[in-house]
Amino acid sequence: MTSPPSSSPFSSHSAPSPADLVITGCTALVHDEHERIAFVEDAAIVVREGVIVSIGPAEETAPVATAERIDARGQVAVPGLVNCHTHAPMVALRGIAEDLPAQEWFDDVIWPVESNLTARDVELGARLACAEMIRGGVTCFADHYFAMDAVAAVVEETGLRAHLGEAFFSSQGPEGRERSLEFALRHRGAAGGRITTALAPHAPYTVDDADLAATAALARDHGLPVHLHAAESRDQTDNSLARHGVTPIEVLERTGLLGVPAGVLIAHGTGIVERDLPVLERATGPVAVATAPRGYLKFAWPTTPVRALRRIGVPVGLATDGAASNNSLDVWEAMALTALVQKSTEGDPRWLTSRQALHHATLQSARAVGLGENIGSLAPGRRADIALVDLTGPHTQPVHDLAATLVHSARSADVTTTIVDGRVLMRDRELLTVDVRATVREMTGRLTALTDRSHGGRIQDYDKPPG
Amino acid sequence: MTSPPSSSPFSSHSAPSPADLVITGCTALVHDEHERIAFVEDAAIVVREGVIVSIGPAEETAPVATAERIDARGQVAVPGLVNCHTHAPMVALRGIAEDLPAQEWFDDVIWPVESNLTARDVELGARLACAEMIRGGVTCFADHYFAMDAVAAVVEETGLRAHLGEAFFSSQGPEGRERSLEFALRHRGAAGGRITTALAPHAPYTVDDADLAATAALARDHGLPVHLHAAESRDQTDNSLARHGVTPIEVLERTGLLGVPAGVLIAHGTGIVERDLPVLERATGPVAVATAPRGYLKFAWPTTPVRALRRIGVPVGLATDGAASNNSLDVWEAMALTALVQKSTEGDPRWLTSRQALHHATLQSARAVGLGENIGSLAPGRRADIALVDLTGPHTQPVHDLAATLVHSARSADVTTTIVDGRVLMRDRELLTVDVRATVREMTGRLTALTDRSHGGRIQDYDKPPG
Repeated sequence: MTSPPSSSPFSSHSAPSPADLVITGCTALVHDEHERIAFVEDAAIVVREGVIVSIGPAEETAPVATAERIDARGQVAVPGLVNCHTHAPMVALRGIAEDLPAQEWFDDVIWPVESNLTARDVELGARLACAEMIRGGVTCFADHYFAMDAVAAVVEETGLRAHLGEAFFSSQGPEGRERSLEFALRHRGAAGGRITTALAPHAPYTVDDADLAATAALARDHGLPVHLHAAESRDQTDNSLARHGVTPIEVLERTGLLGVPAGVLIAHGTGIVERDLPVLERATGPVAVATAPRGYLKFAWPTTPVRALRRIGVPVGLATDGAASNNSLDVWEAMALTALVQKSTEGDPRWLTSRQALHHATLQSARAVGLGENIGSLAPGRRADIALVDLTGPHTQPVHDLAATLVHSARSADVTTTIVDGRVLMRDRELLTVDVRATVREMTGRLTALTDRSHGGRIQDYDKPPG
Repeated sequence: MTSPPSSSPFSSHSAPSPADLVITGCTALVHDEHERIAFVEDAAIVVREGVIVSIGPAEETAPVATAERIDARGQVAVPGLVNCHTHAPMVALRGIAEDLPAQEWFDDVIWPVESNLTARDVELGARLACAEMIRGGVTCFADHYFAMDAVAAVVEETGLRAHLGEAFFSSQGPEGRERSLEFALRHRGAAGGRITTALAPHAPYTVDDADLAATAALARDHGLPVHLHAAESRDQTDNSLARHGVTPIEVLERTGLLGVPAGVLIAHGTGIVERDLPVLERATGPVAVATAPRGYLKFAWPTTPVRALRRIGVPVGLATDGAASNNSLDVWEAMALTALVQKSTEGDPRWLTSRQALHHATLQSARAVGLGENIGSLAPGRRADIALVDLTGPHTQPVHDLAATLVHSARSADVTTTIVDGRVLMRDRELLTVDVRATVREMTGRLTALTDRSHGGRIQDYDKPPG
């Protein structure tokens, strides 16, 4: 694919640190005292030093002298989306393993290819992923991958917020766990506070119980959360029951992961079964689940039991997983698919309304990544992580029900402006902190080496007992 | 929602009739002799008088002097998408009836509101719908609605291709059927041949057997196809069996509709059951089904049994239904959802690959609307209905598998240019034949009257036996 000739869209004239900003004339998505979605028309949002200081009707907003102003008439301001579980660098593998069952996808393609990964591949992938996410209104992502120093550097450079963990398998020996801890401690609070960190064991089927228990102890000792895959599919649950007599969720309980004070973020959970619900309900630490519905359709898996999890108070955040399975990092689509697939799965057109989908996309996603007090709503005191969405296109008019328009008619491509900590990362669809063409050019040159599978190696086997 | 101030994007400098055009530098999606999807890189497409005269590698293409040239480097040329079943004017009702089961959706909202419809509402809705479809790369749509003269006029004006039918219920008496026939005969071949027509009984549950049989006879006599809803949901099939002892598909057979020489287009068919398959297989006329998967998820219906239909040779075209249920007219999304939902429904990640999805979106959709010899592929002799898709965005790079990139990573918003009969209707995302702002402004002013339900009337009852 040749890029058409044009001048590079990259420039770096946006302020590098938390900024002052006033957005006027938008409709703002807010939450009422019961966390219900509400809208304020003709709102002004005032940001100082990266924090929202006021949001409300324009006439109630005192005039402000400020460096940056955005006239957002015709647009809706929503809390920046949170991608609660992804492997950002895997955009380099977008489309490389199609129409395959999960085991072949892992064993025959992804894990062999990942044995070739270099830090430079991870850096380029993360940079392209950040471009894609900024374009789609994502302001924060939870990443769980390898060579995460490179991802942290890209987060610093592109201005996004991120919750990062260095993934490990027990097959790496105790060094894997130690590296994950070292990464988490070293990067915690980096990028002006935009980076938070987690310990990141891969999954109960690749990390043994002793390693998981040690991880839980480290998490307690260091005040760190844990982010891992668990009960990804019903097959994994069935295999765990057959091998160990317990479900993956019960493994998390018996290894202490459900009592980590800073919380555990479970990716996928499509294999969460009835007997897991009381286990999750009695967890003594915060527990959240990230759902990435597109990939489940693609792998012909069931979907995350969102309704059952909501009933027991477990927040469910939205996610895309990596682009090698999901084909995009489009959290807007994850929001729409969550509404659609939940209706279909529950056999109930009334369940998971547009307003519920927006609640998952905002407060629940913020809570899932441990930032429930900082982001996820447009309110005074919250970090100014904001996406502006243009609804003047023919596909989003007329508007009878703004929540439905946002969830079911709008698309990620309708995001015009993306803001993190008050800093504008994309303005009028122009990316200000990533040079996509240069990134794609260098990545493309590296793909032959990256995708070579002639060596016959792989980094891990799928769903084999660890050790 | 206020539109931001800007100059109107509307202008009419594009040629009004089938045009000469050369597109260079694109990758072109073509079909091989076995109808398999293939791609030609650095292709040139030459169009004369609205027809593709050559397509192939640039170096094999003779130089042409022509009025219009498009440099399409970095883009993929695909056959224009076909929306095989919609109610275009219902965009005016986008989002008006959310999170409801089908019966309440029809009886409590849609059919009461539709009793207020005027020809002007239909015209404005159709115009906005055409804008949305042109933006999304749709070059042809099959519409089944009321006051269709207004839709035909908008098709003429906007330059799209359409397959139009005036819908009727038996509750309207024989006049309904007669109006449908009169419409089909009067508009057949209009708009320079871009309009084809069908007889359009609403559905077996709203049109009685005598009326369906009379329709089949008229279709034979006049060489017209028939486009109707049938077996929309499993409930409809169950109700039909309980009331009449036959399925809706068996009703089509016994009333002669499966023997119409010009073919029958069945919308939805999610209630097609095992016993219907031999019925469809022994049909003596062409039969096709239009699938609109998004709405089925939303209503918590099963989806169209695409795999079973393919096995018996019934083409399945892609569709969006109306925006009141689907929330958009995004056929690109229908293509992706067909792949995803089919994998999930069949429990098979290998079924309905990206290439199969592209086959549904191209040749099968063209066949579904009776235009299998005219559109649906980029080949010499076909009408020049083409969409150009930009794949240089971060969400569509890198490209390991172009079919997967198109189906699973690209979005309707990546369409930059839409061409019908060689005439450019959108160029570099600028709509050339529709003034969206003026249309939305007038429509918005009419919504209070259109959506009034205080009169207590409705045009029909849901799933009640006709007569």
